[in-house]
Amino acid sequence: MTEAAARRRGRPPRTEAAGTRDRILAAAREEFSARGYEKTSVRGIAKAAGVDPALVHHYFGTKEQVFEAAVEIALAPAAGMPDTLAEGPLDGVGERLTRFVFGVWENPVTRAPLLAIVRSAVTNDTAAAVFRRMVVSQIMRRVAARLEVPDAELRAELAAAQLVGTAMLRYVIQVEPLASADVERIVERLAPVVQGHLTGP
Amino acid sequence: MTEAAARRRGRPPRTEAAGTRDRILAAAREEFSARGYEKTSVRGIAKAAGVDPALVHHYFGTKEQVFEAAVEIALAPAAGMPDTLAEGPLDGVGERLTRFVFGVWENPVTRAPLLAIVRSAVTNDTAAAVFRRMVVSQIMRRVAARLEVPDAELRAELAAAQLVGTAMLRYVIQVEPLASADVERIVERLAPVVQGHLTGP
Repeated sequence: MTEAAARRRGRPPRTEAAGTRDRILAAAREEFSARGYEKTSVRGIAKAAGVDPALVHHYFGTKEQVFEAAVEIALAPAAGMPDTLAEGPLDGVGERLTRFVFGVWENPVTRAPLLAIVRSAVTNDTAAAVFRRMVVSQIMRRVAARLEVPDAELRAELAAAQLVGTAMLRYVIQVEPLASADVERIVERLAPVVQGHLTGP
Repeated sequence: MTEAAARRRGRPPRTEAAGTRDRILAAAREEFSARGYEKTSVRGIAKAAGVDPALVHHYFGTKEQVFEAAVEIALAPAAGMPDTLAEGPLDGVGERLTRFVFGVWENPVTRAPLLAIVRSAVTNDTAAAVFRRMVVSQIMRRVAARLEVPDAELRAELAAAQLVGTAMLRYVIQVEPLASADVERIVERLAPVVQGHLTGP
């Protein structure tokens, strides 16, 4: 819908709309992080954002769609990554992917929403479906598309499994010494493993 | 406490006690699987087992301790594994560990409680602590103790991360093609990766 059409229907002009949309998204991120997917409601998000629940539905649709938008925002700092991966040399892809994942997890701004995504995806089927679409389709499929090996998608997923599992044990379960290890040492050990999954024998 | 002492205190003799204990454990496994750690109560477990809550406390102590016992039972088919690992040749340890993990996950009897453990560990700190003690200390530390490399524990944890992450994506998040891939193909690809973590350069 055009901005003019939106205004005719009594909604705020774009700049104000963008502010409202961002406020709803920030509230959604907070709610999903604090309560998990199942206990979060559109009504609760609306209340936290100080808007009518109808406005949440208007901008995003269902709770699942709000969650997806919140996940997208959480991964926004990484939005350019798949392109970099797709364009960079293939023999550095293991290190780039590993640095990307730990960069996002080590950043306090993105860590909280990521924790919320993982927790929700593990306990709720709808959130798991969002995780599959966002992380696997948007990142791993694009990596797999560049590989000239049989089983490219399976290989990309086993590479993702190494990274997802390490993030789980380090940031979620907090297993020692992994949880306190220097991130550079982890990258140093994992980059060749991820590279091997993607381009090795 | 000896059986005689237990009887003096008015508790049932061992055979009957074992039956009650097993019934409580089975109920605990069901409850933790169905509701997750947080929503499960000692009262609910007692009700499902058809016993007084005091009996649950008597046999196991706190909810955390019931959970730990339920996890122990879930991993019981694997109880001999750490010994096998500790005794077998070091150059086959990657494959043995990988086969062990997927053997437990592919077995329908052990898969349900494992799912419950993972879901609980990801969403609850107490359950995460149990996961750390059981999985990491009892299995990975014993593997690490056999390795003659610096950073043995970190290496063992990164190996565990590959296996835990693959189990997450295959059984919990159900990412394709990984979720439907033949388990032998997964073992074939992961065994050398796990071996490399443990004994590689």
